[in-house]
Amino acid sequence: MNSIPDFDDILLASRRTAGHVVRTPVLRSSSLDAAAGCEMHFKCENLQRGGAFKFRGACNAVFALDDAAAARGVVTQSSGNHGAAVAMACRLRGIPATVVVPEGAARVKLDAIARQGATIVRCAPNQAARDATTAQVLRDTGGTLIHPFDDARVIAGQGTAALELLEQVDGLDAVIAPISGGGLLSGTLLATAGGLPVYGAEPEQAADAHASLTRGARVLDWPIDTLCDGLRAHLGQLTFQVLNGKVEVLLASEAEIVAAMRLVWERMKLVIEPSSAVPLAAILRNRGLFAGRKVGVILSGGNVDLDQLPWTRQSLDHR
Amino acid sequence: MNSIPDFDDILLASRRTAGHVVRTPVLRSSSLDAAAGCEMHFKCENLQRGGAFKFRGACNAVFALDDAAAARGVVTQSSGNHGAAVAMACRLRGIPATVVVPEGAARVKLDAIARQGATIVRCAPNQAARDATTAQVLRDTGGTLIHPFDDARVIAGQGTAALELLEQVDGLDAVIAPISGGGLLSGTLLATAGGLPVYGAEPEQAADAHASLTRGARVLDWPIDTLCDGLRAHLGQLTFQVLNGKVEVLLASEAEIVAAMRLVWERMKLVIEPSSAVPLAAILRNRGLFAGRKVGVILSGGNVDLDQLPWTRQSLDHR
Repeated sequence: MNSIPDFDDILLASRRTAGHVVRTPVLRSSSLDAAAGCEMHFKCENLQRGGAFKFRGACNAVFALDDAAAARGVVTQSSGNHGAAVAMACRLRGIPATVVVPEGAARVKLDAIARQGATIVRCAPNQAARDATTAQVLRDTGGTLIHPFDDARVIAGQGTAALELLEQVDGLDAVIAPISGGGLLSGTLLATAGGLPVYGAEPEQAADAHASLTRGARVLDWPIDTLCDGLRAHLGQLTFQVLNGKVEVLLASEAEIVAAMRLVWERMKLVIEPSSAVPLAAILRNRGLFAGRKVGVILSGGNVDLDQLPWTRQSLDHR
Repeated sequence: MNSIPDFDDILLASRRTAGHVVRTPVLRSSSLDAAAGCEMHFKCENLQRGGAFKFRGACNAVFALDDAAAARGVVTQSSGNHGAAVAMACRLRGIPATVVVPEGAARVKLDAIARQGATIVRCAPNQAARDATTAQVLRDTGGTLIHPFDDARVIAGQGTAALELLEQVDGLDAVIAPISGGGLLSGTLLATAGGLPVYGAEPEQAADAHASLTRGARVLDWPIDTLCDGLRAHLGQLTFQVLNGKVEVLLASEAEIVAAMRLVWERMKLVIEPSSAVPLAAILRNRGLFAGRKVGVILSGGNVDLDQLPWTRQSLDHR
């Protein structure tokens, strides 16, 4: 399944997941438009099942399995939104899910996975232990691995968000989405089918995708130090192939990201996680690039610890 | 204009405000449905312009004025959502707005009013001073007073939220909305035209509407001590007439309201203010009443100080 997906794969993913995926609303804000100097149409994947676009890809991958493979179950490694999304998709299909999670993962995220009935297998918090544990589970169960982003079925599923956005809003001039492993941005690019420019948005303090796509080669040793917990992965082999030479990545500072996140909470009344705010932060930093244009903005998710808001932490630090 | 409005007034309000009011989405949450044991359809007025349903009533009242009256401008007293909503509606019509605001009103709310270009007139923080100052402004300007709820045009405007909800969701068994002055609930009741039961939801610690509608007479000296800053008014003469004998008011404790508010933030990724959470809190307290039913829930607004969240205050208090 790991050749590059195309537009038809996204249409197929859209049909396959139609009964499960929420057709999320596209919302606007006149005050944010005024602040940005362009017309923004926010695709609200924070309102997706599981609180993030991740459910689209996981759902497509899980429902694409043939019955024999499905019966053996699905395995993934992710303590974040992808783990919960795979667990949810497996529950809907009625098949077992095992999620390999490093020691120290946030309680709230483990709870979200456990609520979906998945088996959680703990391992030491390093990539070698995660890979070894995952391989062991795959041997034990005969299950299928679903990678969080470097998987054609997952990419095709993520593309359904932009597919819907283009159906919901006529005449967009550009689309922008966060980039981390590249699954969402790859799906977005494929869904637009070359019809309009697609931008990635990335934290300055996790700018490995920007570096990779500028150099034309994957950079895997870039320092990552961002509060955007959804944007700490590196590009995959497949996603790099899809995106290389096709998208521009715009950057935003941590302070710009927090400010943009707060703007969306205040003006749009939407709970978004820091990762979701990077595209707006990038637009506000690059006003000239977007001036007067009609821009689709993918709000990727809303899973945030309400006891640990960035501005609350800051205000406490300043006491 | 202060006779009781009817269903046709709501249809007229809907047509009059159509170009200005956002047709807000109706959102669902499978996990909240499971928790409540019923099927809830949330009408998201927190996503309305100005972040609250108040814009509907203000917009209808402002655009109902004839040109001569409109030219003399509009006056209101409200430091809350209604003040900002009137200011916004007047800006859209291009007429002057004056908002009488007591000393000590929250900075964030004054900013919201000022951003709309309204004139702010300060007065001492008591009702006599507010009334005297408002009367003086009315004499000086010849403007029209728009009361926050005891006004037929405002009630008709608020009813457009439920009118849309009934268009958006087939087969509702009941509708529930917060009650304070009674404008939203009166409009909701009129919009349903007797077709289904309508419930009000009120904080136990501001249960004057419950008392008034139980006794069949307005109670104006009930103690009010709730964190729901949108639910501290008493029923008006007109709203009491509309609601008396027609609705049941359900109560919720402050702790239940905060818990329900947090559930909506966490599970639905929506920023709502405490007042908006009272209907969900009341449903969760009265599971038997709603079991298995299809319930429309009006989320009234999302204007909350992000530096002063109830659970953040509580967690700080517990240190």
